[in-house]
Amino acid sequence: MDIRKAVITAASRQQRALPLQTFVDRDGQDRSALQIILNEVASAGIDEICIVICPGDQDAYRDGAGAYAANLHLVEQTEERGYGHALQCASEFVGNEAFLHVVNDHLYLSENQQTCAKQVVGLAKREACAVSAVQPTRESMLPYYGTVGARRLARADNEYEIERVIEKPTPTEAEQKLIVPGLRAGHYLCLFGIHVLTSTVMTMLTETASDAGNQSIALSPALDDLAKRERYLAIEVEGSRYNIGVKYGLLMAQLALALHGDDREEVLAQMVEMMAARELTQR
Amino acid sequence: MDIRKAVITAASRQQRALPLQTFVDRDGQDRSALQIILNEVASAGIDEICIVICPGDQDAYRDGAGAYAANLHLVEQTEERGYGHALQCASEFVGNEAFLHVVNDHLYLSENQQTCAKQVVGLAKREACAVSAVQPTRESMLPYYGTVGARRLARADNEYEIERVIEKPTPTEAEQKLIVPGLRAGHYLCLFGIHVLTSTVMTMLTETASDAGNQSIALSPALDDLAKRERYLAIEVEGSRYNIGVKYGLLMAQLALALHGDDREEVLAQMVEMMAARELTQR
Repeated sequence: MDIRKAVITAASRQQRALPLQTFVDRDGQDRSALQIILNEVASAGIDEICIVICPGDQDAYRDGAGAYAANLHLVEQTEERGYGHALQCASEFVGNEAFLHVVNDHLYLSENQQTCAKQVVGLAKREACAVSAVQPTRESMLPYYGTVGARRLARADNEYEIERVIEKPTPTEAEQKLIVPGLRAGHYLCLFGIHVLTSTVMTMLTETASDAGNQSIALSPALDDLAKRERYLAIEVEGSRYNIGVKYGLLMAQLALALHGDDREEVLAQMVEMMAARELTQR
Repeated sequence: MDIRKAVITAASRQQRALPLQTFVDRDGQDRSALQIILNEVASAGIDEICIVICPGDQDAYRDGAGAYAANLHLVEQTEERGYGHALQCASEFVGNEAFLHVVNDHLYLSENQQTCAKQVVGLAKREACAVSAVQPTRESMLPYYGTVGARRLARADNEYEIERVIEKPTPTEAEQKLIVPGLRAGHYLCLFGIHVLTSTVMTMLTETASDAGNQSIALSPALDDLAKRERYLAIEVEGSRYNIGVKYGLLMAQLALALHGDDREEVLAQMVEMMAARELTQR
């Protein structure tokens, strides 16, 4: 399966400025969140990238994309109809190909030589099917994530076949439908925000969009359907995600980049100096 | 002396997006750097505010200013002619009044009940003269700051009369001209980025601007002249400054706000959890 295209959804009105926030990346270079996400996508060998944006955000996103600006397809989501609808806005761009999908409000830190996106794309290419990145997550975090029910594949301890996808399940629902044998007690497999999806998903979203009138459209029900129609795998990636859209999310993501990057010692020294300087002035 | 107006310089091409970066403020609310700076200005009882911006940044700055947007005077610096020239762009707005001047690339954390800007404005009103905030700074930091030579006033241990102002002096120049009796050895009084200036400064800058052709105009020489013409005081404010324009400046400023704000315990807990979570996943 060839994967040449990627779709980034960045159309949430509340978070439209988020990808334009500035970070110092692990290599010590200044980058917008958008550039870091675009690097993640490019690391998987993908250079045809579509970003679904709020109307009017073209210039800001081209500025924020830096060197990637020239090759971006920017598509407007002209109605506020949810995450699934935003993704569906890229259906013309995607055509009938499988594509990488990454959200705009998370940054990813891999713990091995391959970026998180590359780990997902690698498995999708080998198995020629849809793949979602997942992470074992404590039950208390279920209100924040789409969660999968899945069966562990015999050949690898970090690969699963997905059977169900439920958005933000209750603990009872999760216990009845989403238990994954072999995970630590009280943990579930939650979506990580990186997927390779087949054009089947776009077809389903497009059908739902025309049926639903002006209603909001979620992604998880389409993924749940996908598991019934096609082989659909999950990979527990070796890496961490940082949600930059929550309170102190920018701080924690920047700290993670800094403490796992080239400037680790310098940043730790600056932190100590900052705290010490505050103490000194409290004469 | 009445101080009703403030000028914020935000026209540096390299830093035009800086005031639009998002922070969680000490009270736990999301604010742009610009809003935090505007709060600093407003805390000193000033609500006529002029921001000198890059051409084309009107919309972005009005968006970033939040509740202050309606009352802002935005003036474009149409030529790249330096800091002194940027300030001079506000001369019409200022007229013949004294005004508060704050830079756009620092955030300030007061250590007492009055904000840093209020401490400066308070002294300027009491003494009816120009006042610059200063901070005792190690000699190794001289390459980053304007530095003052001054005489400590007998009545208070944090007030000085300024005699000289030199931009980024060499250690030799500082030792010859800027020693301030009573400071710790190897320390100088460096500018802090908050000033109350009289219209004399605007007059001098306007004269220099018309003499200088298209040359760049600095602020420090005008301040050095001011000290020769008028009574010009310095106040060692009780507070810290965070330069958000340097590498990791956003991180350090956000950390300082968080660790000295209402969410201190929560942020410390999140930091520990983040570091622990990274360790746990390294199986």
